[in-house]
Amino acid sequence: VKIDVAFTSGERGGPAVNDRTAVVIDVLRATSTIVHALVNGAKHVLPVATVAEAVAKKNELGRDTALLCGERNAEPIPGFDLGNAPAEFTPETVSGLTLVMTTTNGTPALLSTSGARVCLVASLLNVSAVARRIVEIGDDVTIICAGREGRFALEDAVCAGILVRRIREARKSGVQLDDGARAALVLAGRARNLRATLKRSAAGRALYELGRGDDVTFCAQVDLHDAVPVFEQYRIELT
Amino acid sequence: VKIDVAFTSGERGGPAVNDRTAVVIDVLRATSTIVHALVNGAKHVLPVATVAEAVAKKNELGRDTALLCGERNAEPIPGFDLGNAPAEFTPETVSGLTLVMTTTNGTPALLSTSGARVCLVASLLNVSAVARRIVEIGDDVTIICAGREGRFALEDAVCAGILVRRIREARKSGVQLDDGARAALVLAGRARNLRATLKRSAAGRALYELGRGDDVTFCAQVDLHDAVPVFEQYRIELT
Repeated sequence: VKIDVAFTSGERGGPAVNDRTAVVIDVLRATSTIVHALVNGAKHVLPVATVAEAVAKKNELGRDTALLCGERNAEPIPGFDLGNAPAEFTPETVSGLTLVMTTTNGTPALLSTSGARVCLVASLLNVSAVARRIVEIGDDVTIICAGREGRFALEDAVCAGILVRRIREARKSGVQLDDGARAALVLAGRARNLRATLKRSAAGRALYELGRGDDVTFCAQVDLHDAVPVFEQYRIELT
Repeated sequence: VKIDVAFTSGERGGPAVNDRTAVVIDVLRATSTIVHALVNGAKHVLPVATVAEAVAKKNELGRDTALLCGERNAEPIPGFDLGNAPAEFTPETVSGLTLVMTTTNGTPALLSTSGARVCLVASLLNVSAVARRIVEIGDDVTIICAGREGRFALEDAVCAGILVRRIREARKSGVQLDDGARAALVLAGRARNLRATLKRSAAGRALYELGRGDDVTFCAQVDLHDAVPVFEQYRIELT
């Protein structure tokens, strides 16, 4: 199988994911939050591009069944129910509900995968579970790093590298890596202390400056959850 | 000073280089060829976007003063005087002449730097000379990897990392790296055998398949030349 890694939004688009397994990674914080929210009982997550779309979708679904969540500039959105910090998404808050989510980098990355055969949602929190699923599926894979406003994001690249390593460990042979996947592997090999790596990344530093250092610590936990969110028919749910 | 690295074409554009020193890297092969051609006596290199523009420019300059060079799909362009292999650009062939050049990845990267204060042309062949010039200039730096048709290219990232390392060695302190520059440093640290690294990259493998392995070996030479091509007013020359 082939494993490609796209570090930036400019590397996405149809041909990159067509007829492949797509994996979307936004460690700080969208995909970490999605995994955690679903494990905590959210029914599904609907990623949408804009605040207006999110509001319209919630009105369509009804106030009692949906919550609005997400961020702009890493801050909660006025009028929304929740921000984008994983710890907000407790069982008490999200159980049984639909989450309508819009974020700066993560939701556009998810929405870019429409040509893929299947789209999995990965973060450090569930990286090994996603690797196992990829090996079960057996298709070529394109790992899409959400990045940061079109730019390369170190924490996403390192998570992609850990994912590539896990797939290679499971498949043993016959895995072909593109230049991005090779680079991600090297970066993961050098990032032994993930909490420190996340803290030093541009996104991590920005979160610390906003007083959200706890989010960074939370998102640095490897394999906290054995769960694979799948994005299909406009919604993400555990399968 | 700040050092940013853009790995892909989607990370370029005005804000990335405005009022900064820009450095363009296309190890396989455009910037390697430009450095080598200028050292071998070419008067200057004019990078242009299209084959039609290149032909028009040569006609404007006159047959005796200009040569057409470049590639499409790594192959020479029909009707052009030279391809994009450094070894073609001998003193006998290029001395005193203007080279009008169009390539798939390198020339678009060069043309994306128009907002920069100054634009330097780097490759492994002259990486230390470019680092010294950057330190002399003292501005913030954006290193632009040409990449490969919009995708991440390992050989450009490794060259960028060597450049970052040389700048840090010279400046000792006060150097701030973005996520891309940190990643490039790690990749350079792991790429001890540059010839092997280039050979394994997607661009390197493609050149070997075309029977152009000698180009890869040539471009892997570190600091063959003590020369800094500068791109200014539509032309690149040694200064």
